[in-house]
Amino acid sequence: MPRVAGLIAYDGTDFCGFQVQRQAPTVQGALEDALADLTGGLCRVSGAGRTDTGVHARGQVIAVEVPWRHSLSALRRAWNQRLPASILIRRLAEAPPAFHPRFSAVERTYRYTTWAPAFGGEGEKRFPLTDRFGVVLPRRPDLEAMNGAAGVLIGTHDFATFGQAPQGDNTVRRIVSLIWERVEESLPVLDPFPVEQLVLTITANAFLRRMARNLAGSLLAVGLGEWQSEELAAALKARDRSRSAPPLPPNGLVLERVRYEEYSDLFSTG
Amino acid sequence: MPRVAGLIAYDGTDFCGFQVQRQAPTVQGALEDALADLTGGLCRVSGAGRTDTGVHARGQVIAVEVPWRHSLSALRRAWNQRLPASILIRRLAEAPPAFHPRFSAVERTYRYTTWAPAFGGEGEKRFPLTDRFGVVLPRRPDLEAMNGAAGVLIGTHDFATFGQAPQGDNTVRRIVSLIWERVEESLPVLDPFPVEQLVLTITANAFLRRMARNLAGSLLAVGLGEWQSEELAAALKARDRSRSAPPLPPNGLVLERVRYEEYSDLFSTG
Repeated sequence: MPRVAGLIAYDGTDFCGFQVQRQAPTVQGALEDALADLTGGLCRVSGAGRTDTGVHARGQVIAVEVPWRHSLSALRRAWNQRLPASILIRRLAEAPPAFHPRFSAVERTYRYTTWAPAFGGEGEKRFPLTDRFGVVLPRRPDLEAMNGAAGVLIGTHDFATFGQAPQGDNTVRRIVSLIWERVEESLPVLDPFPVEQLVLTITANAFLRRMARNLAGSLLAVGLGEWQSEELAAALKARDRSRSAPPLPPNGLVLERVRYEEYSDLFSTG
Repeated sequence: MPRVAGLIAYDGTDFCGFQVQRQAPTVQGALEDALADLTGGLCRVSGAGRTDTGVHARGQVIAVEVPWRHSLSALRRAWNQRLPASILIRRLAEAPPAFHPRFSAVERTYRYTTWAPAFGGEGEKRFPLTDRFGVVLPRRPDLEAMNGAAGVLIGTHDFATFGQAPQGDNTVRRIVSLIWERVEESLPVLDPFPVEQLVLTITANAFLRRMARNLAGSLLAVGLGEWQSEELAAALKARDRSRSAPPLPPNGLVLERVRYEEYSDLFSTG
């Protein structure tokens, strides 16, 4: 039975995360339901990252054994036809023998999108054209302060303050890079009250549950002047979940990329 | 009774356009329902542009007489609290005596967002993270060809080929500018299969019904090599609705700005 790897994207708004659950809509569940409809049986899909409820993906990687005798492009088409509009199989490739989407991955990159200050008048924390994939901040945070404070997070640390390990495993992770950037577009801004798009890009060998959103929230506490940068360092050192600032909401977070050292061109021909 | 002008934004996905209808959800209807809940009576809202079903706005302008004795910022807050998440009152200001959102307007600017080529494999025309506010093109259009052909559209012409006048009025409009641009972002692209964001910005004194989408579709026919640029000129000259290329779908279109010569700083203090 052929084993295929897939590069997929989804709008996580209406899913209770990636990982399958009995009574709730999940991305994995939707992928497996569509395959069951196609093949008549259960094909267990595994994914690189267990994105939380409401979190999106542009570059999630999956693998699955499928009883399929035709081409991979025909499988992609047939599978996509059976999926909701919120999920897309972007590419399929034959999975290398030892490949596992989670265990073979060496790095994940997430992006968190924010907009500042409010699009509306003072205090408005929503905007209909951006709410699905980003959050509106009450005011403009200090990017330099956030990136300065972020230095203590880079490298190998015990991130117990900022997330939960699955099944109580250890909470040591390695953050490769972490930076807040102001996004500038080449298109002239027409809005009389323009706002800035501020994006956190964070790459780590792996993430604890809620780690990306807790780190984004804690850095933002620094950027908005609610925390001194020393408080971030002290919170990291404390290894105590109660010391994190509140997580930012899930809608701003996107799993952008999963990197495989040995399989860097996995989807190049898909 | 105070008369107020408002700058509003909406996600048009779930509305049958701006203008109120008896049995269908509309933006105007939602605005009036929220005001009725607030004031106990009907307040008739007028808008600068009658956006079609599924079309969005970042800078729609409205006016309404409201029996309200408190501050405009209190009205904005109370009104927003009663609106669905898909509509936001961004600013309110006291309307000048002779101001009318439609009749005082001298220019409207719309933007149409496309993505090319497909995010998925060959032939995929959807992408979960962009479908709400843009359309995926089958392949990359020729920007220079589109902008070259667009020259014949700029200026004052009878646009009967590309749209319908309300109540059979005349179909002469003046296009001030019209350009397709490739949007470049300062943020590094992480996607292994990046696509380009191509945006049409079109400013006219006023638009016929479906004019922006028909022009976008006809220019795209040139960009994709389905039309010679002379066919666009001939279609314009024919003043025959059957000569337009099919309109692009509404989800890519946003009413960005309405310009008022005499009231250029209408919302500056709102």
